[in-house]
Amino acid sequence: MFFASDNTSGVPAEILAALNRANEGYARGYGGDEIMVRVRDHLRAVFDAPEAAVHLVATGTAANALALATLTPPWGAVFCHRHAHIAEDECGAPEFYSNGAKLALIDGAHGKITPAALAEALATTGASGVHGVQRGALSLTNVTEAGTVYTPAEIAALTKLAKGYGLPCHLDGARFANALMATGSTPAEMTWKAGIDAVSFGGTKNGLLGVEAVIFFDPAKAWEFELRRKRGGHLFSKHRYLSAQMEAYLEHDLWLRLASHANAMGARLAQGLLAIPGVALTHPSQANMIFANWSQGGHARLQAAGAMYYDLRPLPDGRETARLVASWSTTTEDVDSFLSALRG
Amino acid sequence: MFFASDNTSGVPAEILAALNRANEGYARGYGGDEIMVRVRDHLRAVFDAPEAAVHLVATGTAANALALATLTPPWGAVFCHRHAHIAEDECGAPEFYSNGAKLALIDGAHGKITPAALAEALATTGASGVHGVQRGALSLTNVTEAGTVYTPAEIAALTKLAKGYGLPCHLDGARFANALMATGSTPAEMTWKAGIDAVSFGGTKNGLLGVEAVIFFDPAKAWEFELRRKRGGHLFSKHRYLSAQMEAYLEHDLWLRLASHANAMGARLAQGLLAIPGVALTHPSQANMIFANWSQGGHARLQAAGAMYYDLRPLPDGRETARLVASWSTTTEDVDSFLSALRG
Amino acid sequence: MFFASDNTSGVPAEILAALNRANEGYARGYGGDEIMVRVRDHLRAVFDAPEAAVHLVATGTAANALALATLTPPWGAVFCHRHAHIAEDECGAPEFYSNGAKLALIDGAHGKITPAALAEALATTGASGVHGVQRGALSLTNVTEAGTVYTPAEIAALTKLAKGYGLPCHLDGARFANALMATGSTPAEMTWKAGIDAVSFGGTKNGLLGVEAVIFFDPAKAWEFELRRKRGGHLFSKHRYLSAQMEAYLEHDLWLRLASHANAMGARLAQGLLAIPGVALTHPSQANMIFANWSQGGHARLQAAGAMYYDLRPLPDGRETARLVASWSTTTEDVDSFLSALRG
Amino acid sequence: MFFASDNTSGVPAEILAALNRANEGYARGYGGDEIMVRVRDHLRAVFDAPEAAVHLVATGTAANALALATLTPPWGAVFCHRHAHIAEDECGAPEFYSNGAKLALIDGAHGKITPAALAEALATTGASGVHGVQRGALSLTNVTEAGTVYTPAEIAALTKLAKGYGLPCHLDGARFANALMATGSTPAEMTWKAGIDAVSFGGTKNGLLGVEAVIFFDPAKAWEFELRRKRGGHLFSKHRYLSAQMEAYLEHDLWLRLASHANAMGARLAQGLLAIPGVALTHPSQANMIFANWSQGGHARLQAAGAMYYDLRPLPDGRETARLVASWSTTTEDVDSFLSALRG
Repeated sequence: MFFASDNTSGVPAEILAALNRANEGYARGYGGDEIMVRVRDHLRAVFDAPEAAVHLVATGTAANALALATLTPPWGAVFCHRHAHIAEDECGAPEFYSNGAKLALIDGAHGKITPAALAEALATTGASGVHGVQRGALSLTNVTEAGTVYTPAEIAALTKLAKGYGLPCHLDGARFANALMATGSTPAEMTWKAGIDAVSFGGTKNGLLGVEAVIFFDPAKAWEFELRRKRGGHLFSKHRYLSAQMEAYLEHDLWLRLASHANAMGARLAQGLLAIPGVALTHPSQANMIFANWSQGGHARLQAAGAMYYDLRPLPDGRETARLVASWSTTTEDVDSFLSALRG
Repeated sequence: MFFASDNTSGVPAEILAALNRANEGYARGYGGDEIMVRVRDHLRAVFDAPEAAVHLVATGTAANALALATLTPPWGAVFCHRHAHIAEDECGAPEFYSNGAKLALIDGAHGKITPAALAEALATTGASGVHGVQRGALSLTNVTEAGTVYTPAEIAALTKLAKGYGLPCHLDGARFANALMATGSTPAEMTWKAGIDAVSFGGTKNGLLGVEAVIFFDPAKAWEFELRRKRGGHLFSKHRYLSAQMEAYLEHDLWLRLASHANAMGARLAQGLLAIPGVALTHPSQANMIFANWSQGGHARLQAAGAMYYDLRPLPDGRETARLVASWSTTTEDVDSFLSALRG
Repeated sequence: MFFASDNTSGVPAEILAALNRANEGYARGYGGDEIMVRVRDHLRAVFDAPEAAVHLVATGTAANALALATLTPPWGAVFCHRHAHIAEDECGAPEFYSNGAKLALIDGAHGKITPAALAEALATTGASGVHGVQRGALSLTNVTEAGTVYTPAEIAALTKLAKGYGLPCHLDGARFANALMATGSTPAEMTWKAGIDAVSFGGTKNGLLGVEAVIFFDPAKAWEFELRRKRGGHLFSKHRYLSAQMEAYLEHDLWLRLASHANAMGARLAQGLLAIPGVALTHPSQANMIFANWSQGGHARLQAAGAMYYDLRPLPDGRETARLVASWSTTTEDVDSFLSALRG
Repeated sequence: MFFASDNTSGVPAEILAALNRANEGYARGYGGDEIMVRVRDHLRAVFDAPEAAVHLVATGTAANALALATLTPPWGAVFCHRHAHIAEDECGAPEFYSNGAKLALIDGAHGKITPAALAEALATTGASGVHGVQRGALSLTNVTEAGTVYTPAEIAALTKLAKGYGLPCHLDGARFANALMATGSTPAEMTWKAGIDAVSFGGTKNGLLGVEAVIFFDPAKAWEFELRRKRGGHLFSKHRYLSAQMEAYLEHDLWLRLASHANAMGARLAQGLLAIPGVALTHPSQANMIFANWSQGGHARLQAAGAMYYDLRPLPDGRETARLVASWSTTTEDVDSFLSALRG
């Protein structure tokens, strides 16, 4: 009953097998390995983007911060949701990598920026000439921090506003596969066809040891990204082990199957919760992450049963909100035991 | 015949086995895994430093740059050898992480800083009050970039000069195990007993997929380092896979056995080279890295035989210097085949 | 009828006379001039702070950004009002000088942070361990950006909350003298007696060509500030001209007389505005800065008469808000002509 | 007998008069003043560069660091003389403003980079792909830190090498007027006709209170510079006082007359020194700065006579090197008294 984070899961056997295979013999370091050639081709095919620049890093924070630093100057504002991972969970990595860019925090229910709120922020930022920071970039997150998803059309509506000011658009796709599965979209539809210029294509939360791809659909800034990655200490000498993970992840659509399973477990959990009297969802549950609240007695029962999840700040009425995350390795037994323990 | 870098090697079976074991079940992320508790204890025992702060990162550049940024303010000068890895091979990572500290490059034959050169640099830096940068930190490298080693006594002589100005001292130990084996020293003798305050304890070049430990013997700055690591995107969510590598590395002195083998292969190679007429060593060969030069014909024969190594800039007499690195996976056959091809 | 900013005014004759006097002969550069010795003593006496560190810079942005960078680490959050000058009008200087600290924007009517809003922000920031930025510093502004003032008691209530978390507290006193006159406080009451650790003591808006003092009541960080100032290019070689301005500013309480006049002109303007039917104040007018709104016809009449002021964004009902700033050089004729033009 | 620095001098009456004139009435702030329009036109005419972007700042360090940050990315190497002001006397400002660019220090006798040394540095920097920093910019200084001057032809020879790699070229002209007078060149010949892209056009050392112009001959980066200047706290609200100084400086060639006088005093001093037995020049004296050495007895006599100058580190034979700087305000009596005191 481990629902604290998809990060607490291990990795499927296919990934470890790939590491074993990759371990044979000698390989060129620093991204010059042969597996990376195949990974690049595969990701370009997945995104239907034959010219895209593809880079691998090992953490989501590195992927996001390096991508944003490449997209925005130090005096740029990065428009993002108030509760975005880049705003709340990266200890200021975007500010550090960009040499002091400012995050412009935008409100919106259930983790999603609304076009009106973005339009307002875009209109008022950078309107005072040299005195204020300039408009820099838009960063969206899908699956959002509230467990909801943007459809490609919703993304396109937001990027269109940003592009009206000439801004590049980034997608934090730490749970990209879950968002695809939830919306039934293709990778291209979710990204460049919807106005996204760069995506952090997550692997770690969906079954890898620690690999994320950063993909720029326009490769013009690929060399700058390479330099930023090296300078940030994120270029691996034994890069083949990153490549191997990503290759196995893509092969036979493993990544989509893993996410599909995680979403199914999330749905089973959400439905089960809704069937329990006194339990309410805080946000609509659309992928593999559920926010729900129930009585303190329920929390006590779950704790006694050894359930692991984030217990967020109490609501005014004393009820506490839990964050539950299902992963590729969550089982129906996990879900059902959790529900059973909560019901008491 | 792969002698380009110890980074082109794979990893021993023990390491992959450890990853497999670590993959079982769920684990707390971000360094909270149980394996890390054991790794911390083990490294403290190895260094005879029960209070030391121990952190894992995945690349040597991250280890060095984060350690130095923690030790020196932005207006500090980091004294290091002119050809140190931090000066030449990290694309400015130390400057980036420290927010603009300056590397004060010190000359010295065969990759080693001499006390006289360091004393001169220390005396002249920071002597102009607020106008110039201040003395910040000393950074030594062992094994050096020239394949030579410092003895603990030599390190102590240099750190004593730095400590005369109150400076913290860092050791880039990307090849720490090789330096230990070459000098017959203990980890404590090579570090805190010789005045070292923080060490980048390398694993990647000596058989890991990508793990380095950063150890501060005085834990006062441990929390600052944690924040810098997170902010730099170097805190792994599935941290257990770093911990597992390091645990297997330390177990049964695997790390020392791997380095001992690499050094033995380096010695075999050096001795074989010296026995070939017309071959000269550019630097004394003391660990697993050899710099030697020979005729262009020799290079041609090696190339034809498929040997891989760095071919450095030609000397004034037209001879070229090669850098050859032996690793844990180098075999006597590799060495002998190389020598045979060179002899022609 | 120049009410665009107190920055559009010139300087009183006393200041130019001081520059002339200071111009005699040779003087040590970089802050070593004899006038600076007297300025330091004078400011320590003004603030009843015999140990305070006193530094001069030429712009308010430099004063604020250097002070904050000295007080907070790069991973710190600086708590400030949503519309603070450091948030909106310095093009990200605080983020730049601090190497990426984050401004935590706090709401509050009329430019003033409320204790409840600050308490909430303090409680939620830094509560997620290494994942989020840490609590860094509190920065208040007096006179606020809305033309209102904090009393010393109000400041103390806010700094007490910050100090509950061990945070240093900064006061942006670009209009410090106006705030003193408006509240009838002493410099000590407004600063260290109310929990302020560092103050940007403004001179430029109140009659200098370009000088601000940065005062730290605990001198422990004085040398760090010196290095940051030099490194930021804000240490003047011919420093005597900054010292001379500040000396003349303090002499015979010139600074207080100038601010008193500016506040009186502000009050005259506010009272006059309130007497005009259809004119409303947007914020309470407490010092030398007035925010008011009136019909578009009024704006047209003022424009025709050559009045200069900031015309802010229209309110939902079509009325526009004006920002009017009185300065040491504003005359009663200026005020009365403005009111007359608006009345039509 | 003040020869410590041209920074210890005051300013000529014309400059103070200009401040007085500029003080009349109200003026737009932040560079929008009318005087700045004239200054821009005047400097464009002086440099025969009708499209140039012209900006004013108050210190030489700000001028250099902002210019270089605009010209080079954070991962760029700035090639400069080992003893350049940007390397030794700015407390790391170039590294700070550029977010960690590295200064590549080039040797050369008497403060001047030689083409061979520059060619070597250019060839070896950036030759290791992503691992090392990239070639960023060339920065020359004229008058050099050794008191020597580059001719336009010498500058052109160096910039040609840099431009072979596509690098922008900066000139630190803190003593630009002195260099012009010493070489008999025009501003255009010394700058853009010789391959210079941006110049720090010094005023402070040559008679201003504190104003330097930064001129980009290609205005493409003008807006970026504006943002960097504001963000660095170097945009003055009461900008008219900077403009006024610069306008008076240019008017009737005051700047050239001041520098001509300073150079003449330097020459008188150098000739006088050479006529004294036992006195030797350390560097050729070509402008207003003299490096010479003599016996300790001579230093004692000068000290007793109240002469002020920098007494640099003793030579191996015990003789000490003095740095003497003549300025616009140095008189023949100053020079002759100095020589007389030294002769004893």
